[in-house]
Amino acid sequence: MTKEELFKQILAKESFLCVGLDTDLEKIPSFFLDYDDPIFEFNKRIIDCTKDLCVAYKPNTAFYECYGAKGWESLQKTLDYIPDDIFTIADAKRGDIGNTSSRYAKAFFEQLGADSVTVAPYMGSDSVQPFLGFDGKWVILLALTSNQGSKDFQFLEHKDQKVYQHVLETSKQWGSDDQLMYVVGATHPENFVEIRKHVPDHFLLVPGIGAQGGDLSKVSEFGMNNQCGLLVNSSRGILYASREKDFEEASRSAALKLQQKMAVSLTKKFH
Amino acid sequence: MTKEELFKQILAKESFLCVGLDTDLEKIPSFFLDYDDPIFEFNKRIIDCTKDLCVAYKPNTAFYECYGAKGWESLQKTLDYIPDDIFTIADAKRGDIGNTSSRYAKAFFEQLGADSVTVAPYMGSDSVQPFLGFDGKWVILLALTSNQGSKDFQFLEHKDQKVYQHVLETSKQWGSDDQLMYVVGATHPENFVEIRKHVPDHFLLVPGIGAQGGDLSKVSEFGMNNQCGLLVNSSRGILYASREKDFEEASRSAALKLQQKMAVSLTKKFH
Repeated sequence: MTKEELFKQILAKESFLCVGLDTDLEKIPSFFLDYDDPIFEFNKRIIDCTKDLCVAYKPNTAFYECYGAKGWESLQKTLDYIPDDIFTIADAKRGDIGNTSSRYAKAFFEQLGADSVTVAPYMGSDSVQPFLGFDGKWVILLALTSNQGSKDFQFLEHKDQKVYQHVLETSKQWGSDDQLMYVVGATHPENFVEIRKHVPDHFLLVPGIGAQGGDLSKVSEFGMNNQCGLLVNSSRGILYASREKDFEEASRSAALKLQQKMAVSLTKKFH
Repeated sequence: MTKEELFKQILAKESFLCVGLDTDLEKIPSFFLDYDDPIFEFNKRIIDCTKDLCVAYKPNTAFYECYGAKGWESLQKTLDYIPDDIFTIADAKRGDIGNTSSRYAKAFFEQLGADSVTVAPYMGSDSVQPFLGFDGKWVILLALTSNQGSKDFQFLEHKDQKVYQHVLETSKQWGSDDQLMYVVGATHPENFVEIRKHVPDHFLLVPGIGAQGGDLSKVSEFGMNNQCGLLVNSSRGILYASREKDFEEASRSAALKLQQKMAVSLTKKFH
């Protein structure tokens, strides 16, 4: 999917919502446990009840890998089930030396067929480059993450710039804004203005609203660019809105609430 | 496995060799492709012909993931096949927010039964902590990696210390040297002396000899501590020593060459 196509989807759906499929067997309605593949069955129902409200799905691979080969199958089936016009993000946070990163790229882009994969920047250019060699596929590089530990190393300062700012400045030379996005946590709203100076045109994938405490309206205000440039993720707030039989209504309602706020921001900016 | 037990194995085998199981279908002898699970069959033969010469095996998960669920099964079978007294490293370079890292830890320690997993430090303390809650299991944190791209961010300097030095100093407070090791590439031999000042007692996992050009004798000279403190990895140099029927002899001979050099260094230090 190109940036232009993604922006069109955002305008059509009045939404820049990404639904995080961090599916946890201990948190989904218990009747799913009677299915052969409870994770996929649950994901299917979540996708069915939210697909008109979001423009992206983001399965976090950890939640599938912890069930070994069977989990990997659930992930494959989930990605296959997501409609083609919805952007898919394999949230894998990979990154290794060149010949290994090539393998990961193959795993996520060719084997699983995801549109994008999240990549960790620590190992530098040659760990990221192999992901950039796939037509129409995206790297979403960690820049400023949403967790408390982001303060340990991402804020270290070198020549008046923090490490995450160096990551932005250096990596944006590795590929175009039609193949690179950045992870910027909603828990750092005060940093969006300055981040937009480094990467005015790139899409940002923004985790951290909901359970982690980030604020959607601040993210929209400070982070939006002239092609929206935001994919805001919610996982737990949507997936686990209810553990009862009404879970689909509850999940849809949680997604709708976010979508409606997003529609307001989009209308303000683009009408 | 405890640090003490690992050191005992090193002395008994006169080896601190780790064999990297980066098994690539395009590089193994072609007759393996007739098997149902060529990757596992090849690994089995490699393990059989090197297990008395090494103290650790390190499958890189990328080489398994790229075959989806089937690859994950090959990885599981490989880890199950490795003798219990040999240290296993799931080279996965994971790292995510707390509740996700917990999933990864479960995947590698409980599902796959590995002794250790490599973790990327970029996201900081709460991304690493969940891996440290498993008795007898190890985190091997990326510090100074062997690739060219290590120069992009790991050498940025903050208050007279480079980012990788901050990673060492900060992270060594997160756990003991009986649960934390560090990745330090053999391609930076000049840095081992100073790294030993930061982490005198920790084991270092050292990739980068062989194909990447690192020098085993320099690593031994500058990196060894009073419990050896080194696991030096070779992957391609051992696995792909020959693509012919004699591959086992060739692989064994490549491993033996390294082991013999290691025996000399160990004798010098400990006799």
